[in-house]
Amino acid sequence: MTVPLAPLEVLERARRGGHVDPDSLRGFVRTWLGNSATDAQMAALCMVVATRGLDRDGVRGIVSALIASGDRLDLASLDPTGDTHSTGAVGDAAGLVVPPLAAALGVRMAVMADRGRGHVGGVVDKLESIPGYRTQLDLRSFVTQVRDTGCAVISQTARLAPGEERLAVLRDQTATTDVRELAVASLMARALAGGASTIAVDVTCGAGSPFPDADAAVDAAELMAWLAEPWGRTVRWVVTPMDAPRGRMIGNALEVREAGELLRGGGIPAGREVATAIAGELAEAAGVAEPGQGRSAAAKALADGTALAAAERWVEAQGGDPAVWTTPSMLFEAPLRIEVLSPAAGTLAAMPAREVGEAVRRLGAGRLHPSQRVDHSVGVELLARVGDPVAHGEPVAIVHAGDQWLGDRCAGTIRDCLLIASSAEAPPAVLRRDDPPDA
Amino acid sequence: MTVPLAPLEVLERARRGGHVDPDSLRGFVRTWLGNSATDAQMAALCMVVATRGLDRDGVRGIVSALIASGDRLDLASLDPTGDTHSTGAVGDAAGLVVPPLAAALGVRMAVMADRGRGHVGGVVDKLESIPGYRTQLDLRSFVTQVRDTGCAVISQTARLAPGEERLAVLRDQTATTDVRELAVASLMARALAGGASTIAVDVTCGAGSPFPDADAAVDAAELMAWLAEPWGRTVRWVVTPMDAPRGRMIGNALEVREAGELLRGGGIPAGREVATAIAGELAEAAGVAEPGQGRSAAAKALADGTALAAAERWVEAQGGDPAVWTTPSMLFEAPLRIEVLSPAAGTLAAMPAREVGEAVRRLGAGRLHPSQRVDHSVGVELLARVGDPVAHGEPVAIVHAGDQWLGDRCAGTIRDCLLIASSAEAPPAVLRRDDPPDA
Repeated sequence: MTVPLAPLEVLERARRGGHVDPDSLRGFVRTWLGNSATDAQMAALCMVVATRGLDRDGVRGIVSALIASGDRLDLASLDPTGDTHSTGAVGDAAGLVVPPLAAALGVRMAVMADRGRGHVGGVVDKLESIPGYRTQLDLRSFVTQVRDTGCAVISQTARLAPGEERLAVLRDQTATTDVRELAVASLMARALAGGASTIAVDVTCGAGSPFPDADAAVDAAELMAWLAEPWGRTVRWVVTPMDAPRGRMIGNALEVREAGELLRGGGIPAGREVATAIAGELAEAAGVAEPGQGRSAAAKALADGTALAAAERWVEAQGGDPAVWTTPSMLFEAPLRIEVLSPAAGTLAAMPAREVGEAVRRLGAGRLHPSQRVDHSVGVELLARVGDPVAHGEPVAIVHAGDQWLGDRCAGTIRDCLLIASSAEAPPAVLRRDDPPDA
Repeated sequence: MTVPLAPLEVLERARRGGHVDPDSLRGFVRTWLGNSATDAQMAALCMVVATRGLDRDGVRGIVSALIASGDRLDLASLDPTGDTHSTGAVGDAAGLVVPPLAAALGVRMAVMADRGRGHVGGVVDKLESIPGYRTQLDLRSFVTQVRDTGCAVISQTARLAPGEERLAVLRDQTATTDVRELAVASLMARALAGGASTIAVDVTCGAGSPFPDADAAVDAAELMAWLAEPWGRTVRWVVTPMDAPRGRMIGNALEVREAGELLRGGGIPAGREVATAIAGELAEAAGVAEPGQGRSAAAKALADGTALAAAERWVEAQGGDPAVWTTPSMLFEAPLRIEVLSPAAGTLAAMPAREVGEAVRRLGAGRLHPSQRVDHSVGVELLARVGDPVAHGEPVAIVHAGDQWLGDRCAGTIRDCLLIASSAEAPPAVLRRDDPPDA
């Protein structure tokens, strides 16, 4: 048996590219959470992982320290239970639709969501734009709501993996939010502390994500499954592209508005496809849909209003106005609208998700430091998608802003990052699906 | 003109291996020193420099922010003035000898030294083992002493490059003390704020140093010269090996004791050679020795007692007991002596400087956290050097310890890191010397 390394020794070894054992990493994170290692040391660890990488045993060491920072929920008595997370999607109305959609199919959804981080918005920030919605429930109320209503989505609590929240704040400060090993560790620490039997993950890939391509995303998904195994949990996943924003809307209330469109059976095909793929995986893994039938069951639930009804029950149970999905005018609207005009004629060939997400964050929809308040009303509405023909001077997006200067800056950033070409194809909404060995 | 990047943008770009302009780096460090960027962010910057490197414009950006954190001394009226620094030597009695030795040759030595950092001891900690010696002088007293006595060595003050001290504490916490670009930036910020015309640098290389080999050390030396040029200062350098400890003693009072041996004309050849090489460079650059004559003049000053007399004047002026160099028994001695026995017969082939330095730090001679007090009496006395024949069971070192457990641990670490081979050569004391264009 070897003695775990002290934080300084871990940093020293890791920065030279040496191997660090999982016990030493777990010890590092525990020491930091116990305030015996400094934020500076933890930040240095995040950056060395960002630049030197970390093996899967190391990721497990970090996950286990984060889980041990608080309690764990046991939801076995409520099975079939499900949870859903994303490695980060810009414009993710679909992600808001997954919990009530899977609930409509019979999976009890217990979701501990996060706030915006880096260039990616957070489910909690989005839900807080719904009048009355309470994102902070005590754990007893959370479990009761999952049991009675079939769906609850709360923010991280001080009791479940509180260390993950602390780490997320530090990562956000140090530009290490989308470091793949840390993204996987954070997501799994939250999911494993949360207690649902099936964890569905939207693993994004491309320039706006921690994972450069679909192969890297699949590797990450398999790492998540490996991490979940000793805990007796199942991970199901889909790999989605994150080169361009996914949805039509980017911003908190704007994405709630788009989620309402999807729940009413409308919305854009890409949103429907991602939401039904993830909810379908959950339904199949939970045994409430036959293998291969999950997606069509989910599509039916969107079309026939059962998903909308589940969403209304969920929001009402959590204190929010259930009419939000059908009456979006109750959401705050930003006072200014600034059009982004296409700088050329042709086909919209690229709209980088990271740049657009970052521009929306700086517009006020996200935070640049942890104590900042988000503006729920601001964001960007896309009028054209990659693959669409555009005319010179035609509006391709509308910036919803609270302030002219911030709005103009956001519009300028978006215009500057557009790529117009002679032709381009619309990317698929889902790149790969989980293919569980027993299917 | 480009707008400097915000700290987060700098980290984001640097971690992906992108180029960061010097203004953005200067802005980062200034923002941190102004408490608008966090220690975590600065730690992440240190680690990204450690793993991704930094170009020389970037190093200049950091140096200029550190210098701007305080005042600068102007010592032009006292010329010829000199300063001396090392990039880190384990067992550096020679470094203590350089200021009075160069002073004996006619260079007015104005040295702002540092405390122990990482595995390397600090001049200030060593001098504080001399009874009465004051390492903290106000700047007026410092300048007066340089003018009247020809030599003063103080610790960093809150007025000259205070940011460098803050950065050093952070680097020590994050295992980035011997990152080459940061080591160069710190050293030069202190030297340039200090005001001496000639800056002599002992650039160490090998496993116990920031620089892996002599070529990297020369690159660093040339970078220092380039950084000094716009300030009208001259850098002169020697490159020395730091695979094994340099001196016979490692520890604060122990190194003062060995410095006394050198000042009395004795000591080991390696110590004499390094001290005379550096003092010789200073004397030649300052114009008080003919080109090529500096080293022999320095050797003569050690042999004939003029260096000792200069050392006595210096220590007395600074409040210390000048008899320290000739009466080492006035220094505190550690209560325990633990022998390290050779584990085999043969030739001592390696004694890694980093491991030995780290062991002495953990013995109590250095700090593991910034507020720790050092124990001036503890350390290690080497009885054998690389290249010496050793018998099995023969003592090769003596640990001077205050505590049996700590002493045994230190002795064990040293024994474990020794390499005994069938044959090995003693390395040279100086690997390369500055060859100024005008020489």
